[in-house]
Amino acid sequence: MRALLSKLNKELVWTPRPIVFKAFFSSNRAGKNGRKDYILGPDLPDLWPSPTSTPPPPPPPPSQSKVDEKLVPTIIDGRSIAEEIRSSVAEEVRQMKYSIDKVPGLAVILVGQRRDSQSYVRSKIKACQEAGITSQVAEFPEDCTEDEIVNAVTSFNEDPSVHGILVQLPLPQHVDDEKILGAISLEKDVDGFHPLNVGNLAMNDREPLFVSCSARACVELLLRSDVKIIGKNVAIIGRSKVVGLPTSLLLQRHHATVSIVHAFTENPEDITREADIVISAAGVPGLVRGSWLKKGAVVIDVGTNPIEDPERKHGYFLTGDVCYLEALRVVSAITPVPGGVGPVTIAMLLSNTLDAAKLAYGLS
Amino acid sequence: MRALLSKLNKELVWTPRPIVFKAFFSSNRAGKNGRKDYILGPDLPDLWPSPTSTPPPPPPPPSQSKVDEKLVPTIIDGRSIAEEIRSSVAEEVRQMKYSIDKVPGLAVILVGQRRDSQSYVRSKIKACQEAGITSQVAEFPEDCTEDEIVNAVTSFNEDPSVHGILVQLPLPQHVDDEKILGAISLEKDVDGFHPLNVGNLAMNDREPLFVSCSARACVELLLRSDVKIIGKNVAIIGRSKVVGLPTSLLLQRHHATVSIVHAFTENPEDITREADIVISAAGVPGLVRGSWLKKGAVVIDVGTNPIEDPERKHGYFLTGDVCYLEALRVVSAITPVPGGVGPVTIAMLLSNTLDAAKLAYGLS
Repeated sequence: MRALLSKLNKELVWTPRPIVFKAFFSSNRAGKNGRKDYILGPDLPDLWPSPTSTPPPPPPPPSQSKVDEKLVPTIIDGRSIAEEIRSSVAEEVRQMKYSIDKVPGLAVILVGQRRDSQSYVRSKIKACQEAGITSQVAEFPEDCTEDEIVNAVTSFNEDPSVHGILVQLPLPQHVDDEKILGAISLEKDVDGFHPLNVGNLAMNDREPLFVSCSARACVELLLRSDVKIIGKNVAIIGRSKVVGLPTSLLLQRHHATVSIVHAFTENPEDITREADIVISAAGVPGLVRGSWLKKGAVVIDVGTNPIEDPERKHGYFLTGDVCYLEALRVVSAITPVPGGVGPVTIAMLLSNTLDAAKLAYGLS
Repeated sequence: MRALLSKLNKELVWTPRPIVFKAFFSSNRAGKNGRKDYILGPDLPDLWPSPTSTPPPPPPPPSQSKVDEKLVPTIIDGRSIAEEIRSSVAEEVRQMKYSIDKVPGLAVILVGQRRDSQSYVRSKIKACQEAGITSQVAEFPEDCTEDEIVNAVTSFNEDPSVHGILVQLPLPQHVDDEKILGAISLEKDVDGFHPLNVGNLAMNDREPLFVSCSARACVELLLRSDVKIIGKNVAIIGRSKVVGLPTSLLLQRHHATVSIVHAFTENPEDITREADIVISAAGVPGLVRGSWLKKGAVVIDVGTNPIEDPERKHGYFLTGDVCYLEALRVVSAITPVPGGVGPVTIAMLLSNTLDAAKLAYGLS
């Protein structure tokens, strides 16, 4: 892939020949997808290079050593931060129950038998229960039709006891994300994936109803760790609509200077090394080496990559995008995987669901 | 402003004290705007510092010197590129007239007496006429009501001979942009400012119906000058919804590595100096000095800043954001002001209006 990219992106050479006016414009000549590719750029998959080394071992559990404070980086404890947020949400849910005898409700749609999706959904449902939020799961087999899923979405849209609707991604190949996610009522889009919510997040003078839970989690981890964001250089690695894109937009609203690194970036390590804050959401274990990081940088590792390991109880362990032990020698603060972004993302889902219920009952 | 920012953004110091869990969450405690400010970041105006030097003199007219080709940068001739695009559009309009006896129609809404707005609108109408596109202007006095403007928009939405609707910005202070722009039918939003079009531009797997004319102009100028975009470092200076934001999103779809520089950026010159392509849309004459640019960079200067000059026929001349004469010593290619981005932006408006008509008549 890199070789291909390198070929595509030979050094930007200025050739002082006259400009050639190509007949780019006519849609007749552009052929199938030609015009779209010309205006919106070519559809190219984000294939990251494989890491050169084997993935690093999993990080130690969160702890804050007191041995030599000046040298020991802060391990940002996502579990504690999530617990704090969940307690706040639970308290507001109790107040809502007391004052109007209603509680927020979340509906989750789960398609297929992916073990990771099942596990995520279980965690979300458990978190809802603990916060006093009602929840229900509509499960569909891998080979269900789009219409069956859309019907479930429509039914949840109409159900006044459901305030938030979440479709667990990824969906099977034959199902069109756009169709399913676009069917969710804007007021119940607690994942913030509706393009109108994304557009309103992108535009500084607008307010989206909801912002992606993982983007909010990244900002929450920074703010609650007293990391300044305004004016700081932030490198966001990965540009998925679930994490990278909304996080880049949200951090711009917090007045960070954002650079978005992706699989086509020619010099990802150089850009990342300039950043005061690095947010990695590439989904590539061990992609970000210690040498990619500036001394004193703050690292939020959104990567949650399962690595097979027969010695473990479940046959695998989770690791992030960042070479954790290498990073520890350089950074001022870092989130571990697991125990960093993951729990806070679930806490933000509860927060968004509470907001959706407040919106429905005119309390916001 | 810089002093204030510097105070706000003291060097990112890692203090290894325990994380303090603040009661950020409760909306009751956050007060007016507190919760929004917490989630979406504080509302802060983009006040750029004044340039330290007086604005540079206006650039010479576009020309391509042949004296020493290896040293002379390409002056990207926006007028020629615009002419090429306008001819293509005119040809397609003729074909449309011939095959279905219809032509595209543009409606422009102009509020108030701003001379620059009046001048832009005149240019757009003239360009429509030359391409065979019908056009009409609805003019309103500065003190008109929002409802009057919305009524005009609604009436154009319903008019089948109008395919594109454009509200000339900026609107007077008392008029809510969001309300007016949100009233434009998505299928007639030829400026691409509807949040749904912005959201679909931001999301890689979606297709907006229209993309902002100035964003398209920047990409058009690069592509037609044979500048490679994929993988290249692009610095975009300014983050307005009219230029900076859509250009950053569109260039990401063309697989550039985009960094967005704004008034809160601590080190704008350092980030800009790393860029292969610099797109300046800050609206600050002379902001980008020659020392901000990497040797061989390509510069697209979207800034169109009027500078008073009693010696000139109209009492002013136009200059860009970039110190043009300084840049000429460093860059491989640059757009002049005037004669660079401006004419191509108008050409893209014709292209978008043609697309809107094709959409309406099922020809796309």
